[in-house]
Amino acid sequence: MKKTAVLLYPQFSEYELSVALSILMQGGKPIITLGSNTKPIRGESGLNCIADLSVNEVELDNIDSLLLPGCMDISTLQLEESLLDFIRHLSAKGGMIASISSSPYLLAKAGVLKNKKYTVGLPLDGMEQLGCFELHNYSDELVVQDGNIITARGRGFIPFGICFGHALKLNFDENWY
Amino acid sequence: MKKTAVLLYPQFSEYELSVALSILMQGGKPIITLGSNTKPIRGESGLNCIADLSVNEVELDNIDSLLLPGCMDISTLQLEESLLDFIRHLSAKGGMIASISSSPYLLAKAGVLKNKKYTVGLPLDGMEQLGCFELHNYSDELVVQDGNIITARGRGFIPFGICFGHALKLNFDENWY
Repeated sequence: MKKTAVLLYPQFSEYELSVALSILMQGGKPIITLGSNTKPIRGESGLNCIADLSVNEVELDNIDSLLLPGCMDISTLQLEESLLDFIRHLSAKGGMIASISSSPYLLAKAGVLKNKKYTVGLPLDGMEQLGCFELHNYSDELVVQDGNIITARGRGFIPFGICFGHALKLNFDENWY
Repeated sequence: MKKTAVLLYPQFSEYELSVALSILMQGGKPIITLGSNTKPIRGESGLNCIADLSVNEVELDNIDSLLLPGCMDISTLQLEESLLDFIRHLSAKGGMIASISSSPYLLAKAGVLKNKKYTVGLPLDGMEQLGCFELHNYSDELVVQDGNIITARGRGFIPFGICFGHALKLNFDENWY
């Protein structure tokens, strides 16, 4: 079975990620975590993690979906072109992408939110400053799916995970969480 | 400020831990993660983590509380006496202990559940087999606090985190989750 890639970056939000990860596990969907490199990456709540591979090493043929947690200040991420290219290629081949909290910024930056309805956990003035969001396509719903793109605000971490699980046609108990 | 120790073991449950961790972060409470050693520890959903210290290295004077996630099959954990001693010493000096899902097994094994009302995410026959639980003190509530011991079943991961945050007198937005 193809894998879900899970992006990790410094200050990623553990709780935003964890219910989605648990649903992937329940549904028997294998994952692979990806970082800029394989040095330790500390989450916003202090969990110190090591990615399985760097984004540069992953074989796109083995991946059919992508999960992106938010992070404290996503605009300070060192945005390597390889990360944005990875998002573009996966979206171009129809991969399901689930992105929560501040991380839709990476989708907007990669150009894959174009003409898509989305939400994001950023204030409006922050979105304007970042300059890559189509503001007229913003929705204030907690979770939004438009085609292969699922976006959510941070406090929607449970329905976000459930929406991702359904989009991947996984078998899981959504009432557990 | 004294720290909350967070135990990590192979197959620990990321989602059971993550809301409590986020509440500690919101409340400005520093944490330190502890493992049997500082080799990578993979959670049940695939997140690969490194503990900050091993249980043998930690200075008990710097710790006032303890958080224990569940794990897939806690009875297979290599129960080093140092881990049980750590739990005993922390409980003896009144440290607040929050333990979810299968992990109250470690508290029962260490003897700190004696005469305490508790819950646990294990089936009754499993509890009987393990032989260290006082069955008459079991409660089927989702979260139980008795003095310095908070226990919860896995699906109570949100009220569990909130109960721990209040017990530590932290300032946080409990309606976020």
